[in-house]
Amino acid sequence: MAFSLKEILSGDIRAGARLMRDLDDEIPAAHLALKKLYRHTGRAFILGITGAPGAGKSTLVDGIADLLRKQGRSVGIVCIDPTSPFTGGAILGDRIRMQKHALDEGVFIRSLATRGHLGGLSKSTIDIVNVMDAMGKDVIIIETVGVGQDEVEIVKVAHTNLVVVVPGMGDDIQAIKAGIHEIADIFVVNKSDREDSDKTRRELETMVSMNDYGKDDWVPPVLPAVATTGTGLSDLLGTIERHRQFVFREDNLARYKAGKARVELLEILKKKLVEKAVEDLEKSNLLEPLLEKIANKEEDPYSIVEKVVDHSFAIHLLDGMRNGKGSGKRKGKGR
Amino acid sequence: MAFSLKEILSGDIRAGARLMRDLDDEIPAAHLALKKLYRHTGRAFILGITGAPGAGKSTLVDGIADLLRKQGRSVGIVCIDPTSPFTGGAILGDRIRMQKHALDEGVFIRSLATRGHLGGLSKSTIDIVNVMDAMGKDVIIIETVGVGQDEVEIVKVAHTNLVVVVPGMGDDIQAIKAGIHEIADIFVVNKSDREDSDKTRRELETMVSMNDYGKDDWVPPVLPAVATTGTGLSDLLGTIERHRQFVFREDNLARYKAGKARVELLEILKKKLVEKAVEDLEKSNLLEPLLEKIANKEEDPYSIVEKVVDHSFAIHLLDGMRNGKGSGKRKGKGR
Repeated sequence: MAFSLKEILSGDIRAGARLMRDLDDEIPAAHLALKKLYRHTGRAFILGITGAPGAGKSTLVDGIADLLRKQGRSVGIVCIDPTSPFTGGAILGDRIRMQKHALDEGVFIRSLATRGHLGGLSKSTIDIVNVMDAMGKDVIIIETVGVGQDEVEIVKVAHTNLVVVVPGMGDDIQAIKAGIHEIADIFVVNKSDREDSDKTRRELETMVSMNDYGKDDWVPPVLPAVATTGTGLSDLLGTIERHRQFVFREDNLARYKAGKARVELLEILKKKLVEKAVEDLEKSNLLEPLLEKIANKEEDPYSIVEKVVDHSFAIHLLDGMRNGKGSGKRKGKGR
Repeated sequence: MAFSLKEILSGDIRAGARLMRDLDDEIPAAHLALKKLYRHTGRAFILGITGAPGAGKSTLVDGIADLLRKQGRSVGIVCIDPTSPFTGGAILGDRIRMQKHALDEGVFIRSLATRGHLGGLSKSTIDIVNVMDAMGKDVIIIETVGVGQDEVEIVKVAHTNLVVVVPGMGDDIQAIKAGIHEIADIFVVNKSDREDSDKTRRELETMVSMNDYGKDDWVPPVLPAVATTGTGLSDLLGTIERHRQFVFREDNLARYKAGKARVELLEILKKKLVEKAVEDLEKSNLLEPLLEKIANKEEDPYSIVEKVVDHSFAIHLLDGMRNGKGSGKRKGKGR
């Protein structure tokens, strides 16, 4: 069944939800719609929220969404939960959270679990963000535990990234420190009614202050919050708005857009290339024999991969693309 | 500089460490050595240990390593720490832990942080496990936080997987529940001297009991431990040994080997395919213009990826491989 672009662009919830479902199921018509929708994206403000399990991310996201709704903005939430890879866990979570916003068509929640094997999580996130963007959501929140490699990449599609920390994480703050300067635009110390929260804030501030920032650089602020009561959320929203204005300065925006394009291209490419390679290997009845050879140590996987990759496919294509062609199929033509 | 296979196969620490370093730096001689080493792998017992940050994984791993050393077995430890993607955090951790085993050449520790962009973490882990295996390590422990997609895949190269849980995780146990049946062969409730540990154990046992197991299936046991004092580690090692014997039953072993071969092939393929595609795009000065087109919404990334992927490269190759050729380069020949 074809998709009505008009319905999706007008923000129709049912049409949007169906498109996301069909994208999950890899229905060709959905893929076609996605391609057409793409040029209507780029209007939404994308907010990444990263934090370990138990840091109170969901509550914080819900609180921010509530405030945004009060400002009259529509909100999309994409929750990446790679801890529930093969079950309905994420879907159940969706239902519970949806109830909170059940009477509000302005909030659209979609959860993603790790599915399948071939790096599909990033692509699915990109797809859903793009659909929500085309649907006209003013703000799209990407909520992630942020410790896998995919998540580290995927947050680059966000304009602004919050890192949520809770007091007394001990060793964890070391872990968070390590990857932090690549990700965090704003730190939120959640559950800051706990007595050890000042210490955590000071530690984070010291960590931030140890970096050299130029006068045009953004220095990540550290904000306290109690997501369960809503304390600090209003200040947080103000800081997010300040960072949004920072990112939307001309040179910063160009850099953001280039970075986003790169993540989109490479993550989609990663998924599709491996899919195609496996499909070709299976079609040719070569996959199982190759796996057997590897299992029996008759051949090593490195040499097999080399053979696959050495036969460069891209050269053919690139000539076509350079001449502005290349959209048709030119199988086996060589150059 | 070429590598001496003999040195590595004899377990020479310096040679092994240099090979791993050169693999990281993508030195061609290292890659060649790895291919040659592969047929000498498959002797080690591979143990996966997965748990959230703060669950006490490192202490548990160190304790298990100590016990194995007392049994006279050599141990390799690969620590995957995707929370420290771009810094020296993992390396620092290595140094601290190495001190503990400094006088013992029988323990070899190597930490991996998420590096770069293109799904390299899984391949690096596979590489290091294979080098340690070829070096003759009796047991190789893969330690991971296990919540990213890469990690969910990578634990499939382990014969036996422990999932480490701590009491009173609250929401986290929900998160752990979700992905658990794909990963856990044995549950360890660490810090089980805490008063709420019985509750956590019962919850896990109830969760396990809710599955249908056939008479030949392995039912994941739930074991208490206090890694800091060593309590429960001896029982744990006994259970690991029981599972090892289970996996090494003929039909189970065949299934394990096929699964391992599949992960190895696909994860190496994933990394190399995208690298090659990006390299080709860059060489042809096409990457930047394409990214610009995406950023400006002149073209969508989905259509661009389709063009790249549609021009199937595999067909050429597969013909060559089927005929037992295919190791030479046949650029632009078509089929």
